[in-house]
Amino acid sequence: MTEKWIVGVDLGGTTTKLAFINLYGEIVHKWEIPTDLSNEGKNIIINIAKAIDHQLGEMDVDKSKLVGVGMGAPGPVDTKSGVIYNAVNLGWKNQVPLRDLLEVETSLKAVIDNDANCAALGEMWKGAGNGAKDLVCVTLGTGVGGGVIANGQIVQGISGAAGEIGHITSIPVGGAPCNCGKTGCLETIASATGIVRLATKKVQDSSDSGELKNIYQTEGSISAKYVFDSARNGDQIALDVIEEVAFHLGLALANIANTLNPEKIVIGGGVSKAGDLLLNSIKNYFDQYSFPRVKESTTMAIATLGNDAGVIGAAWLIKNTMVK
Amino acid sequence: MTEKWIVGVDLGGTTTKLAFINLYGEIVHKWEIPTDLSNEGKNIIINIAKAIDHQLGEMDVDKSKLVGVGMGAPGPVDTKSGVIYNAVNLGWKNQVPLRDLLEVETSLKAVIDNDANCAALGEMWKGAGNGAKDLVCVTLGTGVGGGVIANGQIVQGISGAAGEIGHITSIPVGGAPCNCGKTGCLETIASATGIVRLATKKVQDSSDSGELKNIYQTEGSISAKYVFDSARNGDQIALDVIEEVAFHLGLALANIANTLNPEKIVIGGGVSKAGDLLLNSIKNYFDQYSFPRVKESTTMAIATLGNDAGVIGAAWLIKNTMVK
Repeated sequence: MTEKWIVGVDLGGTTTKLAFINLYGEIVHKWEIPTDLSNEGKNIIINIAKAIDHQLGEMDVDKSKLVGVGMGAPGPVDTKSGVIYNAVNLGWKNQVPLRDLLEVETSLKAVIDNDANCAALGEMWKGAGNGAKDLVCVTLGTGVGGGVIANGQIVQGISGAAGEIGHITSIPVGGAPCNCGKTGCLETIASATGIVRLATKKVQDSSDSGELKNIYQTEGSISAKYVFDSARNGDQIALDVIEEVAFHLGLALANIANTLNPEKIVIGGGVSKAGDLLLNSIKNYFDQYSFPRVKESTTMAIATLGNDAGVIGAAWLIKNTMVK
Repeated sequence: MTEKWIVGVDLGGTTTKLAFINLYGEIVHKWEIPTDLSNEGKNIIINIAKAIDHQLGEMDVDKSKLVGVGMGAPGPVDTKSGVIYNAVNLGWKNQVPLRDLLEVETSLKAVIDNDANCAALGEMWKGAGNGAKDLVCVTLGTGVGGGVIANGQIVQGISGAAGEIGHITSIPVGGAPCNCGKTGCLETIASATGIVRLATKKVQDSSDSGELKNIYQTEGSISAKYVFDSARNGDQIALDVIEEVAFHLGLALANIANTLNPEKIVIGGGVSKAGDLLLNSIKNYFDQYSFPRVKESTTMAIATLGNDAGVIGAAWLIKNTMVK
């Protein structure tokens, strides 16, 4: 059999990432198209179908080379029915039969899942998970997302809301408001947004001077990157912010691990680029708060696939259906 | 085919429960034998084999009626290899090839798992789980145990330590010491032992009089049952204890649900007999701390099988191998 390809699609609110991926999970070609949110998102799937056909033409490859299309989408997905709910970022109201639409428009077999789950599957298959069948992925970006894999399968939960690690309640009383309607969610602390909030408050409250305070006074605001840079230079306020973030992440991840004892916890997203300073501190708290047998067996790793995790994990959705 | 039976065994440190269970999960006959801990536990498995044969004789039933024996055991189990680790309560040092021993002595096909996991499987199959494929079971007894089922399968974790819900860290700073070596574990609060500890401290610290304080002064100690009884009678100290326990349980269960979005969380064990007073309070905190979509879809239920959950879940281990 000549090499077959899977189409991996990572559907985002601004950009849609696509890739042709071989059956070994290797990216043959990847590209992006803008996500067209006009007209209540009616063009989104047609544009994906056109993009695939156009790219095949460019590469002079017959469509029979494609065995299917896997897609990660930004919202809760019922994988059995292939329906996505409340994908408000795409302009879709209520529920959309996304898998069926994708199959009709592309004339390919389609499988869909939530985008955070696809990222987790990508890391399991080809990234830091390294084939681990029990895996928890946490993405520290603008928000905090998560994906849970147990016994080699994504845990969806009864309404597709499993993996909402960002909405673990870290501060039960007096926490900051979260977009979800609760207060004190992990996301209000450990996301880039949360870090900026914590740092701004500490800088405003502190009478000490220092690098981060100077930046704030000069620029009028702070970014998460400034916090990490200042911490690396030994700025005390920045170090305090990192410590607070690490405490809440270490505690939450330890409690997840006490429940699931995964082989690996993979940490990804922009905030994970803070590097060893943050990670060592998370690890310290994780060790302190995890059950001894869990501490000995569950390890932590930084995500390795970056932005490719989504398309690779989406391709895995198809790969997984090919197991005899 | 005439009706076949599965042997379900729930191996405990004091008593071993046995049952003949039909393929629909209905108990045909159940009985108990003492667990013989002498001689480093060498007689435990032989006694189980003898008890099965003896009971067949009593009932005048041929051994060919039995399709296999499933067993729950008190310790971390590697279900693939059938090995149990550190079952110190049974006098077993290091690891014991429990499944193989059970197969040899009984001449029956055997499957083993951890006892808390078996209780969870029992509740999934025939109890409060009612067939739910995503289920979290919490047992509030002398300690706090747990079992996690995702996609219809027990989550074992990489070293069999998944489901250690009792060792979720509920009080990160200044909590009470736990048997596991950490401090502030959920078990130090929400177990019968934890409730007694909290109540004793509150009674000693309080200058108010009341039912619970009177009991303490008369008896010199408090039991968990006294706390529940006094709370039902409106004793303020007892109500405060219940509120504190419910806060920590509600928060921990909400955070588990934010991670796994199970269809049901089943609460069992002696402490669950505290009834609606405790449960309504847990539910209030659960609703407060769970992600909105999780709150809407994950429900809580009281375990219904009582002491039978273990043998029924153990029988399910064999039933599960019969799926074509």
